[in-house]
Amino acid sequence: SKQLVLIAGPCAIEDEALTLRIAEGLKEITTSLGCELIFKASYDKANRTSVTSFRGLGVDRGLRVLERVSNEFELPIISDVHDVSQMDAAAAVLDVLQIPAFLSRQTDLLVAAGQTGKPINLKKGQFLAPWDIQHGVSKIASTGNENILLTERGVSFGYNNLVVDMRSLVIMREMGYPVVFDATHSVQLPGGAGGSSSGQRQYVGALSRAAAATGIDGLFWEVHEDPDHALCDGANSLPLKQVKALLQQILEFDAAFKQGGQGDISDD
Amino acid sequence: SKQLVLIAGPCAIEDEALTLRIAEGLKEITTSLGCELIFKASYDKANRTSVTSFRGLGVDRGLRVLERVSNEFELPIISDVHDVSQMDAAAAVLDVLQIPAFLSRQTDLLVAAGQTGKPINLKKGQFLAPWDIQHGVSKIASTGNENILLTERGVSFGYNNLVVDMRSLVIMREMGYPVVFDATHSVQLPGGAGGSSSGQRQYVGALSRAAAATGIDGLFWEVHEDPDHALCDGANSLPLKQVKALLQQILEFDAAFKQGGQGDISDD
Amino acid sequence: SKQLVLIAGPCAIEDEALTLRIAEGLKEITTSLGCELIFKASYDKANRTSVTSFRGLGVDRGLRVLERVSNEFELPIISDVHDVSQMDAAAAVLDVLQIPAFLSRQTDLLVAAGQTGKPINLKKGQFLAPWDIQHGVSKIASTGNENILLTERGVSFGYNNLVVDMRSLVIMREMGYPVVFDATHSVQLPGGAGGSSSGQRQYVGALSRAAAATGIDGLFWEVHEDPDHALCDGANSLPLKQVKALLQQILEFDAAFKQGGQGDISDD
Amino acid sequence: SKQLVLIAGPCAIEDEALTLRIAEGLKEITTSLGCELIFKASYDKANRTSVTSFRGLGVDRGLRVLERVSNEFELPIISDVHDVSQMDAAAAVLDVLQIPAFLSRQTDLLVAAGQTGKPINLKKGQFLAPWDIQHGVSKIASTGNENILLTERGVSFGYNNLVVDMRSLVIMREMGYPVVFDATHSVQLPGGAGGSSSGQRQYVGALSRAAAATGIDGLFWEVHEDPDHALCDGANSLPLKQVKALLQQILEFDAAFKQGGQGDISDD
Repeated sequence: SKQLVLIAGPCAIEDEALTLRIAEGLKEITTSLGCELIFKASYDKANRTSVTSFRGLGVDRGLRVLERVSNEFELPIISDVHDVSQMDAAAAVLDVLQIPAFLSRQTDLLVAAGQTGKPINLKKGQFLAPWDIQHGVSKIASTGNENILLTERGVSFGYNNLVVDMRSLVIMREMGYPVVFDATHSVQLPGGAGGSSSGQRQYVGALSRAAAATGIDGLFWEVHEDPDHALCDGANSLPLKQVKALLQQILEFDAAFKQGGQGDISDD
Repeated sequence: SKQLVLIAGPCAIEDEALTLRIAEGLKEITTSLGCELIFKASYDKANRTSVTSFRGLGVDRGLRVLERVSNEFELPIISDVHDVSQMDAAAAVLDVLQIPAFLSRQTDLLVAAGQTGKPINLKKGQFLAPWDIQHGVSKIASTGNENILLTERGVSFGYNNLVVDMRSLVIMREMGYPVVFDATHSVQLPGGAGGSSSGQRQYVGALSRAAAATGIDGLFWEVHEDPDHALCDGANSLPLKQVKALLQQILEFDAAFKQGGQGDISDD
Repeated sequence: SKQLVLIAGPCAIEDEALTLRIAEGLKEITTSLGCELIFKASYDKANRTSVTSFRGLGVDRGLRVLERVSNEFELPIISDVHDVSQMDAAAAVLDVLQIPAFLSRQTDLLVAAGQTGKPINLKKGQFLAPWDIQHGVSKIASTGNENILLTERGVSFGYNNLVVDMRSLVIMREMGYPVVFDATHSVQLPGGAGGSSSGQRQYVGALSRAAAATGIDGLFWEVHEDPDHALCDGANSLPLKQVKALLQQILEFDAAFKQGGQGDISDD
Repeated sequence: SKQLVLIAGPCAIEDEALTLRIAEGLKEITTSLGCELIFKASYDKANRTSVTSFRGLGVDRGLRVLERVSNEFELPIISDVHDVSQMDAAAAVLDVLQIPAFLSRQTDLLVAAGQTGKPINLKKGQFLAPWDIQHGVSKIASTGNENILLTERGVSFGYNNLVVDMRSLVIMREMGYPVVFDATHSVQLPGGAGGSSSGQRQYVGALSRAAAATGIDGLFWEVHEDPDHALCDGANSLPLKQVKALLQQILEFDAAFKQGGQGDISDD
């Protein structure tokens, strides 16, 4: 029943200066609203739709930028790890290691992440039923690491579309782990723009409110200064200057949920 | 931006006394919370899973019971009409005529409903995209009747399951008509209990909160004194004695949405 | 293990002369290939996407045209019945009564159809699991009429799309009733053309072959002289002049299935 | 229009002797039927549902067993590669490298596979539209390697279920690459058995016939001496002693498709 944490940042580290400016802007907003922030940016986008898509700065340069964000703004950092070989380097810099949704069944990756002892954010695959994330949890927990977050990011619904089943937030919370709602990836239209995924930024507000009212522990947003010119996921990213108003509203729904009790139907 | 209206009552008119008691209970609750109520009960369940399922009292006796509810508790009444031949009798008693979701494309039924001049609640078929409800709207509006409500009640998601796509509430509201969220039918598992539909009452609270936070004009709940022994839709109906606490909570989310402004992402 | 029956004809009875020409063309083709034919055309399209769509000639004129086809070409006739009030008039002319997919759960319609004593073709709703068609079968069979055919016509798959689950043909055949595959409605894209459904004629051949190889008792095709100018379902209708070559091929797959034994995996 | 190739073998290399016996059995069957065979077994199952599931013998021992199958029975060998670090060792032994469906968007893996110069079998992810596999193809082809096969293995359909959209076989063949239908993974029920995926072996015959009639270049079956006691994917594996009768039947449908011409609907 703690206030939700915002996990936010640009999809990819496009360059150092831009990444620092977005981190600074998010830090100001969340500080003014009294909301905890974890900064997220990817150093490598390993599963872009097209082979010619921008992928980021790579492991070494990318982790250096994230380290600078961490030091300069005193922010915890999360980023996704796609390969066992990068786990140690990533764990040395990151505060939370994130498992990409497509890789949520890759046993070696989950076990390697668990073995770092760091908190792990496990994203539920677009092909997984909410109750089946339990098996991914068990893979991580087999290392003795129970510090696990679970993220909903939409489930396959026909072709080139995802749907958010709000029941999944309830089901995953009942497993006893903090649940994050990734609003900006949930409005992606996979492959919907031909050579890249399209997105529906206009529904991020509605789905974020809905998730906060359902009950979540964290909310994830991709944020960019100029989403229409972002090198990655621009169609579903939020413009930095609109974050404050939207977050303020979401926090009201979060408070209403957490103060009011759930009022869910019981069996007495 | 008016407070949401509750549409509630038992799935079917099982008998007159029970129906009156549920109406009385709902009237007390909504009066105490300052919430508008429309009473709903079906006089005939024409599309139950099984031929041996209970169907209700039939048109004549059923409408008489609804008329008594209307007179005794001064409540507006809504019920579903499955056949053109019943339209006039139904329109003489009911304040709102409801088009069942499976029948949402039946042109004659929609036109006949429109021609009564009464408000029409058009339920979106489980097989329809939210933008396609526009064609049903046009069928009704072709009669000159623009007094139309649109209801979301879940969309087919694989076999024996429905999912609520909260984006549909936004899409249908942008068409300019009031939007109702039917929470109790949205948690049905069609055919999930063999000879009848099963349901997941435990998610009604979460989905109702989510819909209120997304933005709705009406909320629909099936309510029964003793859902586990109801003759119809018991598995997804709410127990009467739990309605007040849950509704109170939902109204807070509704107020938060309507006072706060939507805060949705704009294109400036 | 009898050869499959072709059910074919134009979507709607546009006019008498055209309908007779299509019937004559289909009769010639099926006679030359030794394939049984049931002629199908709708006298009223009661659930078109738009209120301004062409609906057909209506019950009286439409049934007269079908009667003329029956007499002139000695063909059995099938057509769909949307309303209990039309059942007797339809049963007086038609050899097989068809229940539209959207109406496959409407108890009164199924019972009234069953009571005519005529063979009933029950189309599986786009929202139904294959095992749940059993409940519709029981509604018809409650009248003592067990002369029932079951038709697969695709299942909802996200928005504006259907998918054919070939497992459903096996599941429905195991219920003991003849199974028809409706290839041309299965390639509809519901609502996909804005004010009407679009379609993918180019997949009718592949899906028909696949269904014949899976094992079916009947195959349904909408056929028109000039599909691109048809008043109904043109996008998914087959051109009459291409029917012979395609049907000849399908009959080879049908024969391969029925002569070869199913070769399915057993549990010995 | 060449006869289809059978790709078959046990899900995992459980032990050397069993693997050799299955290879020998499959070689005899396919030789007697004049069908080309590629032997498939996994040396490591990297994405089993549960962390305690059997994974196979590992890279080194597993590749040695596959090498022995290759030498002893003069069979081409295919196996799946989950990690860039295993690519060179795998390419030294295998004739075809297979990209697992969950990993079908992982750019580095596809590029590394392409760079080996070996034929690549790219499995379409359960979350991908058929037209979106083109992006995976481009990733491989960016290395200059155009020797690519595409495999259909079902697409997500609600929770714990897959559906085969036979249109995808047509769409992928039109891209100009040979298309394989993986019948035994297509009947998996992901997560359907709690701690593991369940399966529906009884539909492998029907779906394989349907795919052959639709038009394919290869057919994939998991085969085991005793599927009910297999350490991996037993519920959807075929018993070795039933392979001959089923394959013989499938080859008839394949021949009917390839001799007869497709007979598909054209636009003239």
